[in-house]
Amino acid sequence: MKVLIAGVDGYLGWPLAQYLAARGHIVAGIDKFLRRQWVEEIGGHSALPIASIEDRLQAFQERYNQNLIFRTGDLQDYNFLKSFLSDFHPDAIVHLAEMPSAPYSMMDQEHAVYTQQNNVVGSLNLLWAIKETCPTAHLVKLGTMGEYGTPNVDIPEGFFEIEYRGRKDNLPFPRQANSFYHLSKVHDSNNTMFACRVWGLSATDIMQGVVFGTQIDEMENVPGFATRLDFDQCFGTAINRFCCQAVIGHPLTLFGGGSQTRGFLPLRDSMQCITLCIENPAGVGEYRVFNQFEETHNLESLAKIVQEVAKGEGLAVDIRHYDNPRKEMDKHYYNPDRRHLIELGYKPSGNLRNEIKLMINDLLQNRDRIFEKRSLLVPDIRWDGIHRRSEIVHETIPQI
Amino acid sequence: MKVLIAGVDGYLGWPLAQYLAARGHIVAGIDKFLRRQWVEEIGGHSALPIASIEDRLQAFQERYNQNLIFRTGDLQDYNFLKSFLSDFHPDAIVHLAEMPSAPYSMMDQEHAVYTQQNNVVGSLNLLWAIKETCPTAHLVKLGTMGEYGTPNVDIPEGFFEIEYRGRKDNLPFPRQANSFYHLSKVHDSNNTMFACRVWGLSATDIMQGVVFGTQIDEMENVPGFATRLDFDQCFGTAINRFCCQAVIGHPLTLFGGGSQTRGFLPLRDSMQCITLCIENPAGVGEYRVFNQFEETHNLESLAKIVQEVAKGEGLAVDIRHYDNPRKEMDKHYYNPDRRHLIELGYKPSGNLRNEIKLMINDLLQNRDRIFEKRSLLVPDIRWDGIHRRSEIVHETIPQI
Repeated sequence: MKVLIAGVDGYLGWPLAQYLAARGHIVAGIDKFLRRQWVEEIGGHSALPIASIEDRLQAFQERYNQNLIFRTGDLQDYNFLKSFLSDFHPDAIVHLAEMPSAPYSMMDQEHAVYTQQNNVVGSLNLLWAIKETCPTAHLVKLGTMGEYGTPNVDIPEGFFEIEYRGRKDNLPFPRQANSFYHLSKVHDSNNTMFACRVWGLSATDIMQGVVFGTQIDEMENVPGFATRLDFDQCFGTAINRFCCQAVIGHPLTLFGGGSQTRGFLPLRDSMQCITLCIENPAGVGEYRVFNQFEETHNLESLAKIVQEVAKGEGLAVDIRHYDNPRKEMDKHYYNPDRRHLIELGYKPSGNLRNEIKLMINDLLQNRDRIFEKRSLLVPDIRWDGIHRRSEIVHETIPQI
Repeated sequence: MKVLIAGVDGYLGWPLAQYLAARGHIVAGIDKFLRRQWVEEIGGHSALPIASIEDRLQAFQERYNQNLIFRTGDLQDYNFLKSFLSDFHPDAIVHLAEMPSAPYSMMDQEHAVYTQQNNVVGSLNLLWAIKETCPTAHLVKLGTMGEYGTPNVDIPEGFFEIEYRGRKDNLPFPRQANSFYHLSKVHDSNNTMFACRVWGLSATDIMQGVVFGTQIDEMENVPGFATRLDFDQCFGTAINRFCCQAVIGHPLTLFGGGSQTRGFLPLRDSMQCITLCIENPAGVGEYRVFNQFEETHNLESLAKIVQEVAKGEGLAVDIRHYDNPRKEMDKHYYNPDRRHLIELGYKPSGNLRNEIKLMINDLLQNRDRIFEKRSLLVPDIRWDGIHRRSEIVHETIPQI
């Protein structure tokens, strides 16, 4: 199949290009390198060194004997987008081209507006461009489990059958997002659902959990294939950040009680799931929602697992509770479904500890890069809009 | 109370300034006259002549012995907004400053993006400006009943208590909007709900039905007090358009079967309800949703009422069914609640026929203005994205 990856230079985009090419798909990509800029803007860098796009494309060409058809540009530029879609005529478009950080979106008015404008307008342009140039192409759009928030009932996959005052309907499950970034994804989901209904477009909206990991098998330690791994307060997500902290001996940072529960999946499972979506497209006019995660964990138990695995690698690290810069529930019910992808053949890789071990070893080789930016490991962007570095509120939990 | 009306030059904004001033409130307003521009852009004009802002402000000063504190500008300009809020320090802010037309938003990519950008960014700027300058001010935000769509169950006011798989929660009621405009209002509602939760802002989100009418008592036939009345395919809503059609003998335009049911309320009731919201503010951190309409009607029955009232005024007019340019359900269940405003004291004026009679007489004096733009009475903006003038599909229903 011909697959266009919007955001091909990102954490998921670049491994996905490899994963798809290794399975015989023809890959094209667009990117404007904004992720590189955003991380630079907040003073961070990737823990793993990443190659320039030129070196990436060359490594890709050498390994897969196909040119990845790449153009620099982004979804804000409607004419660019339309012309590329007309030329390439993809079977599937994977939309990974959004600003993906909650703290970045909560920094101030400017960043909140930037986030929603970038994500909503970019995604809306993509819907129009598909409609105008390739209406039968399947849109695989990355949403987030964070769109749902933490309701006190089970979380179905996008829709739920309910009875209300004696009548029944199948309705979109309510979204209760918890940052302007997560809200931008809710807006995108609503726009996409409408475009499918009104124009007959086909879309899979992936409510993805938190992805972690440094590797997929296809990378084979080729420098041009390595993907980025962020650990700063904006772009560093839970397990990735813990592993980076562990390799420099920085206490693992939990916010509040640490009982927040979320869905997680390794990078390789994300690749597997997205590819399953592509290879099993939604029907004409179908808008389907897949919850995409391997298992749910609370953050404290994850920190303890990272602590244990790190110990096995000879690294002693404490766990420290900071006051929570976000406004979110600490203890809450959390039971999301993840049936659809399993039915399509998703086999969870099921080896969290091994994945963390691989990560720690990859990161150990780049200890200096993490140490250099260690000031970014404790957040100062707060949901109440007042910038203040989080304070330690609990005694550290010493290494077991 | 000190009330800032964003969008004070509009169909609702200008009567609201008068209604509030007549009740002793201090009124400020901002506007960038975009509504005047949008209507001009699509080749239309208001059926009733409206005064310049200068003449409006002068009439206001003469009648109420207070200056309406007015500044030209819009919600896109964050610094303008912040500085005005800091200076005026309102108790309440009524947000009427959005692009309000579904067909305008469906015209093409450019208008869809413009609509969502204008509405989402403007509203987001307003939330930030309130937080930064006057966090205790009460935001009264105009949403639309169209955010809900037409679910097969009762429509509560914003939230509903549900049981799902044996557990209970009080969740936001799912929104299923049916145009990029209506979606922009859903996005705004979601952003506003979040801002109340995370920053403790107070907001009333009004899910308003379709407003009709040319008059409120306070206007007293003073030219500077008249409000606009649009009848073109973008900005002319059902009853207003029917009345304009009736006075020039153009068949009343129904789309599809005409069984679409919506909530409606006269302009005077809209003023009454918005004022009740202002005078009974939401609490700190409270996000409340009010469904605001007088009664529900299906469009065919409304057309017949307009036809009858017009006959009483000596005007013969037919009803004609056109193919529906929108993609919407013709026959559907529709039972929205409207309890909250009644509890606050809303007394529906309850005289649809009289209101229509008043309108027809106001419009008869401006027959030529409507006749001049009669080509705009049949739509050519279609939800499938193909511009084509709607065709007649049913025989006309002759005058009774």
